[in-house]
Order: sequence, then C-alpha cells, then structure tokens
Amino acid sequence: MSRQMHLVGHVCTGPTNHHFGSWRHPESDAHQVLDASRYENIARLYEKGLFDGLFIVDTQFLTDLRKDHPSEVAQWGGQIQMLDPMLVLAVAARATKHLGLAATISTTLNHAYRIARSLATLDHLSNGRAGWNIVTSAFDQEAQNYGHDSLPDRNERYDRADETVEACMRLWDSWAPDALRVDRAAGVFADPERIKYIEYEGTYVRTRGCLTTPHSPQGRPVLMQAGGSERGLAFASRWADCVFTLQQEQLRMQSFYQRLKDQVISNGRSADECVIFPAVEVIVGESEGEAQEYADYLDSLATPQMGLTILAAIMNRDLSDVPLDIPLDQVDVGPRGPSGVGAYENLVGKFAKSGPMPTLGEAALLGATTWWSPRLVGSAKQVADHLQELFESRCCDGFIITQALSPGGIARFVELVVPQLQARGIYRERYSGKTFRENLRSGN
Amino acid sequence: MSRQMHLVGHVCTGPTNHHFGSWRHPESDAHQVLDASRYENIARLYEKGLFDGLFIVDTQFLTDLRKDHPSEVAQWGGQIQMLDPMLVLAVAARATKHLGLAATISTTLNHAYRIARSLATLDHLSNGRAGWNIVTSAFDQEAQNYGHDSLPDRNERYDRADETVEACMRLWDSWAPDALRVDRAAGVFADPERIKYIEYEGTYVRTRGCLTTPHSPQGRPVLMQAGGSERGLAFASRWADCVFTLQQEQLRMQSFYQRLKDQVISNGRSADECVIFPAVEVIVGESEGEAQEYADYLDSLATPQMGLTILAAIMNRDLSDVPLDIPLDQVDVGPRGPSGVGAYENLVGKFAKSGPMPTLGEAALLGATTWWSPRLVGSAKQVADHLQELFESRCCDGFIITQALSPGGIARFVELVVPQLQARGIYRERYSGKTFRENLRSGN
Repeated sequence: MSRQMHLVGHVCTGPTNHHFGSWRHPESDAHQVLDASRYENIARLYEKGLFDGLFIVDTQFLTDLRKDHPSEVAQWGGQIQMLDPMLVLAVAARATKHLGLAATISTTLNHAYRIARSLATLDHLSNGRAGWNIVTSAFDQEAQNYGHDSLPDRNERYDRADETVEACMRLWDSWAPDALRVDRAAGVFADPERIKYIEYEGTYVRTRGCLTTPHSPQGRPVLMQAGGSERGLAFASRWADCVFTLQQEQLRMQSFYQRLKDQVISNGRSADECVIFPAVEVIVGESEGEAQEYADYLDSLATPQMGLTILAAIMNRDLSDVPLDIPLDQVDVGPRGPSGVGAYENLVGKFAKSGPMPTLGEAALLGATTWWSPRLVGSAKQVADHLQELFESRCCDGFIITQALSPGGIARFVELVVPQLQARGIYRERYSGKTFRENLRSGN
Repeated sequence: MSRQMHLVGHVCTGPTNHHFGSWRHPESDAHQVLDASRYENIARLYEKGLFDGLFIVDTQFLTDLRKDHPSEVAQWGGQIQMLDPMLVLAVAARATKHLGLAATISTTLNHAYRIARSLATLDHLSNGRAGWNIVTSAFDQEAQNYGHDSLPDRNERYDRADETVEACMRLWDSWAPDALRVDRAAGVFADPERIKYIEYEGTYVRTRGCLTTPHSPQGRPVLMQAGGSERGLAFASRWADCVFTLQQEQLRMQSFYQRLKDQVISNGRSADECVIFPAVEVIVGESEGEAQEYADYLDSLATPQMGLTILAAIMNRDLSDVPLDIPLDQVDVGPRGPSGVGAYENLVGKFAKSGPMPTLGEAALLGATTWWSPRLVGSAKQVADHLQELFESRCCDGFIITQALSPGGIARFVELVVPQLQARGIYRERYSGKTFRENLRSGN
C-alpha cells in the first residue's frame, strides 16, 4: 500500500471559519451555530469522508478593534468561538463511531488536573477518539476574562505548557490500564496497587493526583500543536502526535516539514510519531469555472470591516483611528508586540515578495477572505492533483481542511475530492484503526 | 390543580451513589460506568418518569483513609466521580428532550468565566435545560489536585462563591436576549449595542467580559445549592432556584423548610422562586416484603471498609490506625475541623438521639449503606404514602431521589411509584414547561 494521506477538519463554533463573509451565504449554517445538531451534522460529514478527525478552534474572548468595544467582531460575524468545545465534542462523539475529536485547550488558562480529567472523560465517552490541540493563548483579552492583567510572556507560557503536559501525562498514567477490576464476588472494584499519587511539583504547575478517571482507551489523547515560534517547534517536537501549520508556499512547507521531522528525531522519537498537516482551504466545484464563481461570490460577501478586528488582535493594538488607505507596513504593532508570532509573520510574509504593499483596508479584506491558509479553487481533479503533489513532495503527511462554507463545503469535498484521492490509492477506503491515534499512525 | 411534587434524580459517575455495596449487585451497571450509553440510559429513565431533572455529583479527588493512600476508596468501590460531569450532560442532552441537566461545579476551583461559558453552552445544546449545583469544595485533597496546599476557610470560600455567581450573572447578561441577528443581507451578525463588557472587579474574582456565548434559552442555568452551614443558607437564600438537603427527620425537614423560605423572602424573593428538596433513597418492591428482602440483600454487599474512607474524608483525618471497636464519639476530628459541616452534623446527629453510640466500624458500615439520606423501603403504595405525607406537611417541594441500585432502582421507581403519585394528582402527567426552570416553577 502506498503512503496514505490524512485529513483533519477545521471547525469553529461561531459564524465563520477562515472566511469571514461566508456566514452571509444563503446556504450557510451560521443561524444554527448554537445548535447541537449543527455539530452532529458536521461530524457525520467528516466521518462520511473518512477524515482522521476534526478539531475545534477555541479562544475565549471577542477580538477588539477598539479598546472596550468588543462588538465589531460580533457585528460583522468574525471569528468568535461561542461554545465550550469539549461539550460539543461529547455530542459529536455520540453521532460518530470513528472520527477523532480534538479540542483546543489553553495550558495558560487551565490547570493540568482539569485538562487531564476532561480529556480522559472524552476519551472514554468516545471510545478512544479524544485529541487535544495544545495552545498557550496569545491574546491578553483572554487573560483578562480570566482575571489577569495580561498573559505571561511567551517563554513562560511555554514553560508552563511543558509542565502542564508533563503533569497531564502522569495523571493519565495514575491508573494503570488494568487497574479497574469490577470483581463483584470479591468486592474489589479496582486494584489498589495499580493506582498511584503522582505528586507533580513544577515551577508553575503542581498536582498531587491521582486522577479520578481510570486509564482511558488511548491512554492519552492525541496531542496536537500549532505554534510557529522556535519555542513552539521545540515544544511540538517533544510532545505532538500531530502538528498543523499555516504555510503559504510549497518550498516553505517542505523546509518546515523537514526541519520539524529532524527535531522530532533529535528528541528520540520516530519521525512517524509526529505527523504534519498544513491548513488548506478548499473550494471545489463540478468545474474550475463553477468553483471560481463560487469563490468569487463568497468573497463578494466579505468587507474590510470584517478583517479589521482580526488585524487589530494580531497586531495587538487599537486600529480604530488608523485610516484604511495607509500602507500596511506603516502601521506599527502595539507596544507589547504582536499576538501570535506565527500569525503575524504569516500576515507580513504574505506581502513581502509580491507587488506593492497593500493598504490597511486591502489587508483587512484579505484577512477576511484568503489570508489564513492557501486556498485551492478548482475542479475535484485539480484539487486532488494539488493535494497529491504537496503530499508526494514531502511537504506534509496530510492536511487540515478548512471550509469557507459550512456545511456545504464539507459535503462537496467529501463527495467530489475524496473519491479522487481514493482512486489514486493515497487515501483510505475505510477506517483501519480503532482509535484516533491508530488512524493517524496508519499508512505513514 | 393541586400543588405538584417535583423530583430530581441523583447521579454519580462512579461505582456507587449513596450505597457503597450496590455496585456488587449482579444487575448494577457499575461495569459501564465509563460508557456514554450508561448515562443516556439513566437520563431516558428519569425522563420517562417525568422527573424535573437529574444532577451529577462531582468531587475531583479520591478520598483517603490513610495519607497518601488513595486506593482504598477505589479498591472497595466507594464514592469516586470518574467523569467530567459537563461532558456527560452534553451526551444526556441529546438522549432527552425535557429533562433538566445539572452538574456540580466548584466556585473555589473554577473561574467564573469558565463556569459561565460552559453552562451557557450546555443551556444552548440542551435548549434550556442546564443547571448548576454550586459547591465551594470541602476537601483539601481536591485543592491539592489543583496545586494548592489546602482550601481557603469556609467564609472565604463563600465570599468567593458570591462573587463568582455575581460575575456569572453579569456574564450571562453580557449578550442581550435579542443581540444575535444573523441578518445576511445587511451583513449584521449581531447588534453591537446589545453586547457589553462587564468589568467585574471583586476581592477574589475579576473578569472583563463579555462572554463569547450569546444569551442562552434560560438566560442563566437553574442554580442549585446544598450547603448546610449558616453561611451556606445565606448563600442559598440569595441565589438558589433549588436547594437540596440531607435531613433525617420530618420535624427537622419542616423547620429547615420554613426557615429557608423565610430567608428567601427576606432577600426580596418570592418563596416559590426557591424550591426545597430533601434527599431520600427509595427501595421499592412489588410488596413490602420483597422491598425489604431487596434492601437486606443490598446491605449484605457492603462492608465497614467501604464506609471508612468517607468517614475519614468527612472527619478530615487519617483513620487507618484507629481500631474499629472504639466508640465513634471517642474519635476526634482532624486538627483542621471536619470537611463539610452539614455532612458531619448529619453523621453525629444520626446517633445523638438513638441508643448506644456505635463503634467506628458500625458507623462505617452505616456510612456505606443507610447514613446519607432517609431510606424508604416498601411497596409502591407505602413509598408514595410517605412521599405524599412529607410533601403535604410542608417539609419540601419535592425530592432528590437517590437509588441504591442503578439502573434497576430508577426503572422500578418510574414503573411503580410514579403512577401512584400521578393517581393522587400530586405529580405531573406530562412536562408543562419548555425549560428546566419552567418545570421547577410549575405547580408550586
């Protein structure tokens, strides 16, 4: 069997994924964004398409364009994560049988014990399909919702993240896999020798243990990570089962891929233990023309206003007084530096090599439409060709697929692109593993 | 229509509810304690019985008999809450349509923003059926799992609880009920004038707001509370929609009921806004004899060892070196006082008026079987008579029903007792409200 491509779906619990105008499309499910059935439907679509899993993005604040004015992002329908992702995944677990289910959880805003217990619960409720997208949080407003003035600096956040994952690993091992007995006749519910305190003492994280939750089917959830900084990559190479990345160009994808795999190996792990997925947004149609028309229509639904809040969040400053016609490179980032180095570099890098510098307004419109991840627009064959080329040129082990339009974009991908990939022998015909991790590790 | 009785089911995510030997019963579902289907089944049974709701108990530690030896409680199958209750409720929400769904969440171990967001999510996913059993945590071991040496003292915990609920209330109101628009043509997702920062600044709790979650169907979840101390009652009379209590005798139930209703009124609320439910354990059979046989068999499955861990936890001390034949009143509580004043008073009070003081071993056996709540053993008619008498003598507005045996005890109650209550005109024939709160407030 040739090497197999992996796919993970990108889900937001708000009006939009990466395309901020898409909720205005008449077929968008944005009006159902608070309904459990929306997420059951999305999860079933991804499972129909034999995706390895889905992951839910999470941030716990509304991005500000102006200080003390959270309403723009809500007004224009930008990136808002409205629901607790773990509850949404518990619902999705019962609507599916094979799909991996990952949530974004911050190590800066959550204690290891809570994270470990909640993910172990999901792993039980889903029979071994839990995943954790580990983030350290990038926005001070999120810290302010949790009672802090600002986030710790990046290095401290990553030090805490390392400790949090170490503590979680030990908590997940605090019950041995065979500790639970349920021997009614003997009156022994669990083997006392197979459960232990962990007494974790770090600089930032302490926990006595043990967990109240017995060892889960996967032992630990699939660990996912996306940090783009040096420190982020060091963290990912140590812990991650799966790294996703925003890379605009094939050469950059290749160099990122090779570098991270080398780092994984330097950490004493096998390269296959950490799969790497760039994000791509796919707009597929029955023909290239139809797909382009569809993309153009979506883009016509976006406005610069929609993108300004996310630029303000990433640049970590108030943009309300900056005229939209000023060139982007003349707009300084805030005094505390950008929020999310990878995202900011991606923003600037996108314009570094190409034509004239856009104005703030033009950049905002791009931020609302095509900025986040490379966009593939075309027929099923064209999309499959492109994904195959990236995959076979060792840029990646698979992809995070984002959809401009939910749920129609997912349904189209599953219906049109998946059979193309299967026909080429580079994508599964059925699930082979029992757990999320087994599926991610198969066929590499 | 005469005044209507309310019922709420008591659910643990571990081997046992209040009867620590019951998991050994051949018909117990203790072997499925980590399975989503167990909770779907339980929720469906309670909904079949037209219960107002269920609530899930939660503590995040294993009780110690000896210091650094968590394994006894696991070995003998005592009270261990194995799963994150919010995820379990998300699953139950999709298996039911009317049943209220409440989780125990500690204000000492969780920040207001997380609590508010998670419960608002559940309220959306369940279409208005979320409830919150507010606790301040009573056990130092729980604090130690979260990195603290010990819990703050009770008054500080309640001060923080007051602030946490205040902050949550404001977060739940940060989106006006009509803020969400989803006006695709105008490109307005939400009305910016209807979303606000809350800027809550307390002594213990700060949060900037706003919530990322729009106003939920109930606006705020049903607030439940069970603290037995003076401070606990002051808290309950201010906030609670529903108070549950452990009271062993009818006269004590009556005085508790009257006192709390008076306090609710002094707080400027209507007495009906706070319903009061004592907990009762029901063992019902086709006849009194069969029920008694069933109860005796269950009791034969318990051992003193099973009860010792919970005594150690409540007395807040190591009991491993105390001989089992010492009279209970000669066993001192730990130097930091008992954990959970109400529970300790209940323990001692149970023996104050009756015969000779039990030994530690005898008390432990009672702790493992009948100590927690009054037990009604009898035919359906006898059980219904007793519940009706308590209800009509203004001891309560309804009951928390605990089951020795899950799921059979629930099924028996629904099949045998519910029709008796309905025939007497004191229990609903169908759900009348759309939300958990509407059902709790109907028929009072």
